[in-house]
Amino acid sequence: MPTTSVGVFKIATSGPGDVSGLMAMIGSGAIDPTSILAVLGKTEGNGGVNDFTREYAVAALCTALAPKLGLSPEAVEQRIAFVMSGGTEGVLSPHLTVFTRSAAERPAGLSGKRLGIGMAHTRDFLPEELGRSAQIAETAKAVKAAMADAGISDPADVHFVQIKCPLLTSERVEAANARGNKTATTSAYSSMAYSRGASALGVGVALGEIGPVVRDEDVMRRYDLFSNVASTSSGIELMHNVVIVLGNSASSASEFEIGHAVMDDAIDAAAVTSALKSVGLGATPQPGRTLVNIFAKAEASPDGTVRGFRHTMLEDTDISSTRHARAAVGGLIAGLSGTGAVYVSGGAEHQGPAGGGPVAVIARLP
Amino acid sequence: MPTTSVGVFKIATSGPGDVSGLMAMIGSGAIDPTSILAVLGKTEGNGGVNDFTREYAVAALCTALAPKLGLSPEAVEQRIAFVMSGGTEGVLSPHLTVFTRSAAERPAGLSGKRLGIGMAHTRDFLPEELGRSAQIAETAKAVKAAMADAGISDPADVHFVQIKCPLLTSERVEAANARGNKTATTSAYSSMAYSRGASALGVGVALGEIGPVVRDEDVMRRYDLFSNVASTSSGIELMHNVVIVLGNSASSASEFEIGHAVMDDAIDAAAVTSALKSVGLGATPQPGRTLVNIFAKAEASPDGTVRGFRHTMLEDTDISSTRHARAAVGGLIAGLSGTGAVYVSGGAEHQGPAGGGPVAVIARLP
Amino acid sequence: MPTTSVGVFKIATSGPGDVSGLMAMIGSGAIDPTSILAVLGKTEGNGGVNDFTREYAVAALCTALAPKLGLSPEAVEQRIAFVMSGGTEGVLSPHLTVFTRSAAERPAGLSGKRLGIGMAHTRDFLPEELGRSAQIAETAKAVKAAMADAGISDPADVHFVQIKCPLLTSERVEAANARGNKTATTSAYSSMAYSRGASALGVGVALGEIGPVVRDEDVMRRYDLFSNVASTSSGIELMHNVVIVLGNSASSASEFEIGHAVMDDAIDAAAVTSALKSVGLGATPQPGRTLVNIFAKAEASPDGTVRGFRHTMLEDTDISSTRHARAAVGGLIAGLSGTGAVYVSGGAEHQGPAGGGPVAVIARLP
Amino acid sequence: MPTTSVGVFKIATSGPGDVSGLMAMIGSGAIDPTSILAVLGKTEGNGGVNDFTREYAVAALCTALAPKLGLSPEAVEQRIAFVMSGGTEGVLSPHLTVFTRSAAERPAGLSGKRLGIGMAHTRDFLPEELGRSAQIAETAKAVKAAMADAGISDPADVHFVQIKCPLLTSERVEAANARGNKTATTSAYSSMAYSRGASALGVGVALGEIGPVVRDEDVMRRYDLFSNVASTSSGIELMHNVVIVLGNSASSASEFEIGHAVMDDAIDAAAVTSALKSVGLGATPQPGRTLVNIFAKAEASPDGTVRGFRHTMLEDTDISSTRHARAAVGGLIAGLSGTGAVYVSGGAEHQGPAGGGPVAVIARLP
Repeated sequence: MPTTSVGVFKIATSGPGDVSGLMAMIGSGAIDPTSILAVLGKTEGNGGVNDFTREYAVAALCTALAPKLGLSPEAVEQRIAFVMSGGTEGVLSPHLTVFTRSAAERPAGLSGKRLGIGMAHTRDFLPEELGRSAQIAETAKAVKAAMADAGISDPADVHFVQIKCPLLTSERVEAANARGNKTATTSAYSSMAYSRGASALGVGVALGEIGPVVRDEDVMRRYDLFSNVASTSSGIELMHNVVIVLGNSASSASEFEIGHAVMDDAIDAAAVTSALKSVGLGATPQPGRTLVNIFAKAEASPDGTVRGFRHTMLEDTDISSTRHARAAVGGLIAGLSGTGAVYVSGGAEHQGPAGGGPVAVIARLP
Repeated sequence: MPTTSVGVFKIATSGPGDVSGLMAMIGSGAIDPTSILAVLGKTEGNGGVNDFTREYAVAALCTALAPKLGLSPEAVEQRIAFVMSGGTEGVLSPHLTVFTRSAAERPAGLSGKRLGIGMAHTRDFLPEELGRSAQIAETAKAVKAAMADAGISDPADVHFVQIKCPLLTSERVEAANARGNKTATTSAYSSMAYSRGASALGVGVALGEIGPVVRDEDVMRRYDLFSNVASTSSGIELMHNVVIVLGNSASSASEFEIGHAVMDDAIDAAAVTSALKSVGLGATPQPGRTLVNIFAKAEASPDGTVRGFRHTMLEDTDISSTRHARAAVGGLIAGLSGTGAVYVSGGAEHQGPAGGGPVAVIARLP
Repeated sequence: MPTTSVGVFKIATSGPGDVSGLMAMIGSGAIDPTSILAVLGKTEGNGGVNDFTREYAVAALCTALAPKLGLSPEAVEQRIAFVMSGGTEGVLSPHLTVFTRSAAERPAGLSGKRLGIGMAHTRDFLPEELGRSAQIAETAKAVKAAMADAGISDPADVHFVQIKCPLLTSERVEAANARGNKTATTSAYSSMAYSRGASALGVGVALGEIGPVVRDEDVMRRYDLFSNVASTSSGIELMHNVVIVLGNSASSASEFEIGHAVMDDAIDAAAVTSALKSVGLGATPQPGRTLVNIFAKAEASPDGTVRGFRHTMLEDTDISSTRHARAAVGGLIAGLSGTGAVYVSGGAEHQGPAGGGPVAVIARLP
Repeated sequence: MPTTSVGVFKIATSGPGDVSGLMAMIGSGAIDPTSILAVLGKTEGNGGVNDFTREYAVAALCTALAPKLGLSPEAVEQRIAFVMSGGTEGVLSPHLTVFTRSAAERPAGLSGKRLGIGMAHTRDFLPEELGRSAQIAETAKAVKAAMADAGISDPADVHFVQIKCPLLTSERVEAANARGNKTATTSAYSSMAYSRGASALGVGVALGEIGPVVRDEDVMRRYDLFSNVASTSSGIELMHNVVIVLGNSASSASEFEIGHAVMDDAIDAAAVTSALKSVGLGATPQPGRTLVNIFAKAEASPDGTVRGFRHTMLEDTDISSTRHARAAVGGLIAGLSGTGAVYVSGGAEHQGPAGGGPVAVIARLP
């Protein structure tokens, strides 16, 4: 396992098409464009089916990076994993998190495991495979491949697995119907949930958090089956899953460390605090440690309540529950961390317990 | 000043028309209907111009209370102050807070000031007076009258002033135009902000938080002028202001105490914690003390940022900024207090500093 | 078959709680409250799960009518069929249509069939029966009972069948799960579509428009199965179907006549014109005939296109497709009839062909 | 005046970033990219402040056209006028209308005036000039310049003037404040209306439809002042006005003709029919004539009614009135023309009478 250096850069954006911050850092030499492995972004769309801010952001980034990499925009999109999560409700603030990786010597005195990152892709799925066991199994395979790519062998060292997965459109449902097959749902909006859920179950299978056999009918029903570190986002622009594993690796010489906790519900302040503490941050941070970013999933609890009190997120026809949940969890995390520029993503099906979700924190070490 | 007993009851509701919880408490004798002075509610509408859940809740309560009070529903609405704040975004949970007041002996050993409540009304306003100095001055007069009614003489003992104020509709704007007068705004939605802002400035004037002279053009512009304890809600159903003062009074024999703090921005976790501590609650509560409810105002900071990071609430044409802000602040307060059944109301113009707002807490003493 | 007199009154409302127009007509003697059989209303909510304007309107009407009928509000709700359709998007205007029926002598010279109305109820459904064959079969029985009640024996004389049907909530889904049964869907919003669809299929079965055997899996899938005269609305306030049949009857002495046509898609202007002409209205109306109201269903075509061009209604996460469709079809019908005070209701699953829907017109004869 | 050939091409899109249709027509030689003067598009955003589908569409088009024109994307944006109108509510269908112009011989036998197009730009505005007389006067100058560019001297030959104009953002309002100046409004959303209104008044002034003196305070108040042919759209991406004049010109050798009518209100079916007839289309079209596209403006009537019946568009906090209005007028126009691929744009302030708006039709001649 070669030693790698992994960098993490958080860059505020003024709109989904704003690439100026990243370009400035490339221009100044702070970021070597050839080392960029993945970009996770929060964009200010609705996070739903017709959220075009995600693909707009990706298009803008690919166009801007193309000349820097000597590639066509299309080739840039193949080379770098772009995961845009739409929806900056409430105090959430649009931004990009850029992950870089390059070969490095691990300094002699470096103690402990440091941030590692790895990536893998599944094959393309048929529309009728989304939200079902085929998506689960293929995702599990890709998670293991991404762990190896990250230089991580112990599942306990995996703290966040970000997956980008497809959704159904009218056209895709039609295509399945034309083959005589039914899709898991005919609604584009609810297909996003199915795809996110199956992808998360794939992470759970890969990490041994749940057993290897998950049936089609368990997806979106057996909420006791979940991964504590999965974060999945569905988007219209692809038909396969892209898997990014973040964890701590003995072969990394990074200045960063990652930890996580699991929110049991959407108001689990203790879990957020615990995640911060796991990397030496929180009310009394370890000297020199600073927050880089927080990555969390939010959802409306499917049983319609939070600690015994009814919520109204699932019955609201004006605002989708994912927007409600991101706003609320974003408010809590921003309050506890002091910044709204955090990555809170909606739709936590099978990602953490029902109504809760994973929360991971990356700290920069002194 | 006669001694009074003030009660506070928080009752969850299953919908805006649900009066069963209150009726059960009246049936069991827990609440004497003749002692009800005010009802503050969170209902699950959009909190905007066309939020009919507020008037529906009031209509349902008046119809249900009428036979208990031997009054017509209309007379009930005149007797009791009903303040319904629409919008239970995110984890916020619909509920009623019922305030009762009755004459009482103050027990000999009772120490310190206890929760007092008082009420007053302004005259009806003309549409062209809303959001302007006439509304400010009349509100200030009513605040002083409500303080006297509450048995509170020191402005420092006032911890929350809830005001219900009018808004403009197309018809009301037309009526002003027909008189040759222009209203502060022609938009129903933005009139809610003007009316809330002027009402809050009236509180600030009454309590000496700001000087006595506030000009028409200061409303919605001079955000350095504000009250730390004002909470104002606009509704279509009235043309005057209803003022409810909550504070601690030496003439109260209540089992409850109130305190407050001011959130400097929408992610000011420290202020929420401080408000909780001010009544002996928080991470290590005083023995026997329990949380009854939290009353807070939320708004999108007018400068478009929170602690240096851009928010997108004011540029969102799909969801009004008041809904965004309630969701985010509601998420934070729920996380720190452990419950989503809190009263977080939107539109904090001149209520606390720009982007922040008052947060008051009522605790039950052992 | 006794001869009946059937009256139809369209009354504009100033809000969901406005009963003043109806009360004025009762006060003036224009409407005998004891003759009111049904009230169809358009209210200005979102038409979705959390549209409380419907139940608010019903509550207000029941409270207002109770003393006029010497009944409790609850008994009024049992006696009169209230069908409130939420959503007055675009130019649609909130209003009530009040149907009265009383015994009458049919005048000697009266020619032709005249407007008849009949009503029937199904039994209460279990949550797991909604959207499935049980709901279809029970509805078909109730349609036949309502035809008999209307004095109509020939299905060709039935021009509009309005049905009010239940929806699923989180609680109802839980109740089914607790019994070990799965509901047709777990989403409250999509349960509205299932319930509307199964109810419409019940009309089709009763009128012989489709064969008697419809399977569970045909609901929301076999869109070639539909009724040309069904109009179904789901609401949270009931667990059974209420069926109202409108048609022309030889035993009616009404001053009104009804006709209908079927819109093949959401822009089928010719069908609207044809429906108007069927009762002597349109560009060159028969002398003395006037429009009372138009009743139509609207929906986004499930294939995502209208006459070959893509629509975006089904991919919009900000606005539900039912709101889009009502706005568009409402705009067309209002343009062709000259008024926005028409009853256009959303969600036309199995009501007319996919993407289209029934359109019925009631004219007053000279 | 040199003779020109003006082409008009309507191209459906599958999303805001879809340029494949235009690229195919360029590839096949059907469109010469160097002849493209303007592109009017309907994109599927919300049409409000945060509608990024407009700038995304422009970015995608500029990137795609750049190599065809041998220019940078930025230079393409300067050369071609891109006007993207967000919002395809209801049956409206996303599409582009591409206008080309090139020098041509006018065939000997060509009779009558034919479609001409001209363009002009104003200078950049300061934020505090938007919605005020400076914007009006500069726009009027640009309209006259664009008429000259189109080869049109008689204002009666002008049938549609499309203007793209700026809006205010928080930053822009701050910039004005920093200069000690107040903007016409502080709300981004309402600034769109002010900018559209002032731009339309500029058209009215240029064409002599209204007198030359329009005061700041007339904007958004004196709705009796309007242009019958103005169509204005505000977008975040520019600070000046772009003016495109469409009319019939004696110096044009185009195969197309344009006509218009004015909708008096949002349900004015007769005006739509009249506009169609003005270019030989409608129920009985002239032989060989076919519809290319319809361009119309829609708005909620400011007095809250349509033909005496209340509408709810202005009181809706969930959906902006511009979306309501586009959906309704789009439904009517689609019904009368047989297609939802029409350009219906929201926000008709001072564009046609209050609540109405211009409707222009382009036909291809045989």
